[in-house]
Amino acid sequence: MRVGLIGFGKTGRAVASVLLCSKMTKLQWVVRQSTVLEHRSVPEFLGIESDEPGLIYSKAEFSAAELFDKLPVDAIIDFSGDSGVEYYAEEAARRGITIVSAVSQYSPGSLDKLKKLGARTVVMHSPNITVGINFLLLAAKILKKIAPYTDVEIIEEHFKTKPEVSGTARVIAAQLDIPEDQIKTVRAGGIIGTHEILFGFPYQTVRLKHESIMREAFGNGILFAVDQLRGKRPGFYSMEDLLLPFFTLKDGDPDLLKADERPWRQLATE
Amino acid sequence: MRVGLIGFGKTGRAVASVLLCSKMTKLQWVVRQSTVLEHRSVPEFLGIESDEPGLIYSKAEFSAAELFDKLPVDAIIDFSGDSGVEYYAEEAARRGITIVSAVSQYSPGSLDKLKKLGARTVVMHSPNITVGINFLLLAAKILKKIAPYTDVEIIEEHFKTKPEVSGTARVIAAQLDIPEDQIKTVRAGGIIGTHEILFGFPYQTVRLKHESIMREAFGNGILFAVDQLRGKRPGFYSMEDLLLPFFTLKDGDPDLLKADERPWRQLATE
Amino acid sequence: MRVGLIGFGKTGRAVASVLLCSKMTKLQWVVRQSTVLEHRSVPEFLGIESDEPGLIYSKAEFSAAELFDKLPVDAIIDFSGDSGVEYYAEEAARRGITIVSAVSQYSPGSLDKLKKLGARTVVMHSPNITVGINFLLLAAKILKKIAPYTDVEIIEEHFKTKPEVSGTARVIAAQLDIPEDQIKTVRAGGIIGTHEILFGFPYQTVRLKHESIMREAFGNGILFAVDQLRGKRPGFYSMEDLLLPFFTLKDGDPDLLKADERPWRQLATE
Amino acid sequence: MRVGLIGFGKTGRAVASVLLCSKMTKLQWVVRQSTVLEHRSVPEFLGIESDEPGLIYSKAEFSAAELFDKLPVDAIIDFSGDSGVEYYAEEAARRGITIVSAVSQYSPGSLDKLKKLGARTVVMHSPNITVGINFLLLAAKILKKIAPYTDVEIIEEHFKTKPEVSGTARVIAAQLDIPEDQIKTVRAGGIIGTHEILFGFPYQTVRLKHESIMREAFGNGILFAVDQLRGKRPGFYSMEDLLLPFFTLKDGDPDLLKADERPWRQLATE
Repeated sequence: MRVGLIGFGKTGRAVASVLLCSKMTKLQWVVRQSTVLEHRSVPEFLGIESDEPGLIYSKAEFSAAELFDKLPVDAIIDFSGDSGVEYYAEEAARRGITIVSAVSQYSPGSLDKLKKLGARTVVMHSPNITVGINFLLLAAKILKKIAPYTDVEIIEEHFKTKPEVSGTARVIAAQLDIPEDQIKTVRAGGIIGTHEILFGFPYQTVRLKHESIMREAFGNGILFAVDQLRGKRPGFYSMEDLLLPFFTLKDGDPDLLKADERPWRQLATE
Repeated sequence: MRVGLIGFGKTGRAVASVLLCSKMTKLQWVVRQSTVLEHRSVPEFLGIESDEPGLIYSKAEFSAAELFDKLPVDAIIDFSGDSGVEYYAEEAARRGITIVSAVSQYSPGSLDKLKKLGARTVVMHSPNITVGINFLLLAAKILKKIAPYTDVEIIEEHFKTKPEVSGTARVIAAQLDIPEDQIKTVRAGGIIGTHEILFGFPYQTVRLKHESIMREAFGNGILFAVDQLRGKRPGFYSMEDLLLPFFTLKDGDPDLLKADERPWRQLATE
Repeated sequence: MRVGLIGFGKTGRAVASVLLCSKMTKLQWVVRQSTVLEHRSVPEFLGIESDEPGLIYSKAEFSAAELFDKLPVDAIIDFSGDSGVEYYAEEAARRGITIVSAVSQYSPGSLDKLKKLGARTVVMHSPNITVGINFLLLAAKILKKIAPYTDVEIIEEHFKTKPEVSGTARVIAAQLDIPEDQIKTVRAGGIIGTHEILFGFPYQTVRLKHESIMREAFGNGILFAVDQLRGKRPGFYSMEDLLLPFFTLKDGDPDLLKADERPWRQLATE
Repeated sequence: MRVGLIGFGKTGRAVASVLLCSKMTKLQWVVRQSTVLEHRSVPEFLGIESDEPGLIYSKAEFSAAELFDKLPVDAIIDFSGDSGVEYYAEEAARRGITIVSAVSQYSPGSLDKLKKLGARTVVMHSPNITVGINFLLLAAKILKKIAPYTDVEIIEEHFKTKPEVSGTARVIAAQLDIPEDQIKTVRAGGIIGTHEILFGFPYQTVRLKHESIMREAFGNGILFAVDQLRGKRPGFYSMEDLLLPFFTLKDGDPDLLKADERPWRQLATE
């Protein structure tokens, strides 16, 4: 699968390194606002051995149409900013290129533009595109349904200089319908980032915890998304849409052993 | 719902205290092997204020038929041992009484007897009947499907004198299809019991952790089971069978907001 | 060592069970305000096999002088309340009986009385007399001196119904000279109690964490205190006074291996 | 303080970045075996703005004597390997230059050479020169003395490909005199590295935990060591030697409040 990357900040670079190392994707190019690294090779710049083309271009040099003609892609990965969608929207829709946007903050206008693209091609948006956080969120929603009487608290830890409550923690609180003052915010030293969702039962505790190690985690989220979006009909998707099918352990699912073969029972008969 | 309890060891007593405090169940009696506490009142013995009858009988005093006639129940909660099922099987099946067995170790013969009862009445068996552990197990199976490339390790901590690896940890390992040497066993002091399932991604970590506080947790598991089994057809059920429906967040599920109302997007447009 | 216990609430009972099981102490009696359990045997009441006398008396039945004459003690353990000291102060001082008070809240007048007793006999007071918490506090003060540039946060977790910030957390904050808003308070379900002191360095994190399992932990703190106070001169002591000597790993200390035998170097030469 | 750095592998580079950002040290040069980066500027190579000289030389270009004449230093920081000491030993001793070696594996011969240097100048060696780990080790030794009856277990987590048990964990086990099978080794994904020392009391638990975030932590350990070694007499020192003075909270220590002013009591009188 041929991919192009929009944006080449810290996270964009980390994602590029994951794409280059993956056999699933072939990085055709990187497009960015700045002209600073123009025509540099991404593998060479990142010190990764790879024979994927991956040159860096500025938006000023090529229009999206010119770039897509010159170096066609099946999917666009967007780690730029609010205005990134302007660059590629029309051409991507026209050619049916899949769009995966991980832009964390959109203005209502840009988000609306992105959503409308969903009528013409496969579009996905996630402001925190890690598998871990999105899994946790769904698992927590399910546990809240199973045990609505539990007390839920969110503990998030980040580096000292991170201002305010983590956006991800606020999303979790909103999804679980708990007030924001149940988010406990720890700020100390150089902690990369952890989110823990704590369910307090009367006589037991369940903790769902995510720890970020490096921003390359977003790259693995992209690979998951790109893989799951394959063959999907045009539409506007979220990570939740892609994860939900895994939560339906259907009858006949090979992962669901027959009742009398289940290990609990094996244990019980030992 | 009128319930009777078989077994009155440490866990049986803890479960009885939860049943007495719950408005959902009415404890009709406790039956046990020993005659030591015969005719004592359970509320009085446990120091709980309650007007539920709950007297303690020995198996020698009444047969199941006599007891069920004298003090009818809708469900039997079994925290006794391998041979407990002998006492009530025939009469419970004949009268269509729901059976919830939390016996942790069955001989193949007894387990077989229990299973066969499933043809005639609603039977459920779980050797670790806490909501927390069973939720964790299902969540972990799902995450393993989503991210099969992760390294999974299980860390379980218990009091110093607990021999061998925890049975629950071994069940988790079996269900996740990971070798038992990936269970790390910590034994120290008076730790009640924790189980952590760790998923190591390349650049992030997800930890699903359960901490036991008191054995009353089994009582809450019983209440959940009894509630979910209401109206079920005869069959042999597991906790997984009762939890799975919660994992299917179907379209139209009120917990699943419409795509464009989802908080991630709200965040994205702030 | 013959001991008497003042107070027989939940914590007093837990402490009594530890004293009964310890070979170091012999429980002579329990004195309490209420007459409810008068003349009951503590071992029998707690279901502990022991041949220690340990009967329960009310303050109304005997004055301290009468009780000390009848059943002499070497130490008084006080888990009662503000006014407990009134009962025994004069007689304990006169006879040189060691006093260990774990009363958590004193009025200034009562505390003053207790302190003044230190001029005449060995007196110790600790409102949280666990070894774990007091060790953590000292270790944290030392680490703060070593690395004053770290960000320190305190995370305390307790059961849902515990009101306000934990007193222990506030003491830790005061001792470490950090503002109280760096205490993060988690309230959920039936969590017994945890305190974590987190030191955020730029590129590493140190966490000092205490988890309470049962209130019997106070009993072990009492045993430690009673043991350490043996042979001490009259004075008013704290747990910190008793722990500090362990923090001075002196030259010649058998625990301090000679420089060139230290394992780091053994590792280095492998 | 003028410093020179021996070794410029991954850790050497991370340490160099910390030295460049610190006002306490001035990086005069880096010496390494390889000639690959010869004469490159360290600040420029690492992308750090700094006016410290810091050029990279190969051992082949200058002898230690020539280099020390050309660009004098007060301290040598050694992150190279077993043979690094050969290069500078004689000249450093002759000029009284402080040596801080963080080489993790020495042959007995090289270690012996390093130790003998201690007769002539200030020498320090630590194979894991982080403040956090070394503090934890000392704190754990003290707690073991206070509570010898506790069960101690070590849990260490690292990335999947790290072979064998962590050397640091083995040192901790040796220092605490616990068998190596009480080290629980978790290997999963990209975990940088954590070490937890767990003390299991009968009714409470103390956990001392260190989490590595980035290898720059070694740089902060170097700064601590260099600072503490100032004014020391010639000798062979360890991190423990430098940390121990902080553990002696002496009478009159301003950090030790007078007994009746201590916050526990303040709490008690509220």
